[in-house]
Amino acid sequence: MAMARTMTLLLVAAALVVTSCGAWKVNIRMPTVAAMDDAMAPLIHALRPLLGSGRHAGVPCDSWRLGVEAYNVRDWKAVPASCEDYVGHYMLGSHYRRDSKVVIDQAIAYVDSLKLAGNGKEVWVFDVDETTVSNLPYYAKHGFGATPFNVTSFNAYAQEGSAPALPETRRLYNKLLSVGIKPVILTGRAEYLRASTATNLRRQGYSGWMTLLLKAPGFKGSSLAFKSSERQKLQDAGYIIVGNIGDQWSDILGAPEGARTFKLPDPMYYIG
Amino acid sequence: MAMARTMTLLLVAAALVVTSCGAWKVNIRMPTVAAMDDAMAPLIHALRPLLGSGRHAGVPCDSWRLGVEAYNVRDWKAVPASCEDYVGHYMLGSHYRRDSKVVIDQAIAYVDSLKLAGNGKEVWVFDVDETTVSNLPYYAKHGFGATPFNVTSFNAYAQEGSAPALPETRRLYNKLLSVGIKPVILTGRAEYLRASTATNLRRQGYSGWMTLLLKAPGFKGSSLAFKSSERQKLQDAGYIIVGNIGDQWSDILGAPEGARTFKLPDPMYYIG
Repeated sequence: MAMARTMTLLLVAAALVVTSCGAWKVNIRMPTVAAMDDAMAPLIHALRPLLGSGRHAGVPCDSWRLGVEAYNVRDWKAVPASCEDYVGHYMLGSHYRRDSKVVIDQAIAYVDSLKLAGNGKEVWVFDVDETTVSNLPYYAKHGFGATPFNVTSFNAYAQEGSAPALPETRRLYNKLLSVGIKPVILTGRAEYLRASTATNLRRQGYSGWMTLLLKAPGFKGSSLAFKSSERQKLQDAGYIIVGNIGDQWSDILGAPEGARTFKLPDPMYYIG
Repeated sequence: MAMARTMTLLLVAAALVVTSCGAWKVNIRMPTVAAMDDAMAPLIHALRPLLGSGRHAGVPCDSWRLGVEAYNVRDWKAVPASCEDYVGHYMLGSHYRRDSKVVIDQAIAYVDSLKLAGNGKEVWVFDVDETTVSNLPYYAKHGFGATPFNVTSFNAYAQEGSAPALPETRRLYNKLLSVGIKPVILTGRAEYLRASTATNLRRQGYSGWMTLLLKAPGFKGSSLAFKSSERQKLQDAGYIIVGNIGDQWSDILGAPEGARTFKLPDPMYYIG
């Protein structure tokens, strides 16, 4: 109940913030509305955007987003101010979901192509934020990434454990469980968020992971270095990383990457 | 004169093929038309598309294209048939140019951030097809990649040496020359295309490269392996690869990649 109330408040707050930008039509999408690509698909976030062209003055937002996804635009601190509306439309509408679905369809086709040893040593690495769960309820209140990242308020949100699942990723997760590939959760979240992260994942239908790895207190170094070193430990312990999925290039670059990597979309923030 | 006539014939042929698909409005774009993002910009190809939504039945073409650019969709043989129109619109319209511009803007910002040694050992690797020059006059006649690749007809086209420059890449190329970084042209084209490739590049305003490297006859192995080994030779000879740009992930993956890599858009074909 408390959780449902919090969620409702969050959504109302998000709606207020969003409408104050002047570009958002707040409208709970009914599951009976037949959208073109994702009719009946579970929502990631219950606000409905207007369609956005992305043709704003200044940086062309669609090209900027492509640059982010193809790892041409790096080390950025915030979404360009002129692209806040564009990114909001992208994240709240069917576009984000559709882009995510193509990634997961490719991942599942890859899994189906594997000749598995079935020895219990085959693992798949998942990131958390914007990979297993969506922080849109948070980012909708923080300019969809156009506001500089505030670690204090984000961690307070993460501690609630209320982030909704990304349904496409959950589909892959369950597929892997069904074929005997063990999920490893590897996140840059700090160790003190272990309980809330695990609770959040379970509430959202994720279970049966082999291990949940968070960043130890005092770890200095980039996310890329942290994640690479954790994957190296897995490999040294005899595990085969058959796949690795995240929303950041720092999730999937740095040896050992895993036999195949998948980059989920995320135009809201950059972690190096 | 002969070249201009060939180009005109090609464009007319392309226009005929394109209009026969029923989805194309053939219309030479006047330089005085103010487009939103690229007013007065040189054209890559002189056909004007209708605006395409990319929402076709079957695979969502915009999401498929993003999947290609973010290296999630790999080893594909042809553009999905339902996306031929979408890719044609993308390539002929301002979208491709706009996406390319963001990549080159990032590359130039990176060049500006470098502290160069200026010792003549700093090089930048360029691919050829869809990187320095555009084969759109060819692909417009071959389904924008929806028709399976035909090496014989493509090589005959390449031998004409008539491919137009990609203006954004040429901007980067000239910037590098101006700061003393030496361009290295590294292409998977076969050695017998050396003269036509060099002529094509010079006609299109590229000059002063340090070396032009083509695939030796009898080379077995992937494009990725070929290009990596050539970059290794450069490095072994004391060169510093400060940048590397191509339209294929196989241009920019594989150690030594270069200090920074840039992926230009190309939804028309895949080379592994």
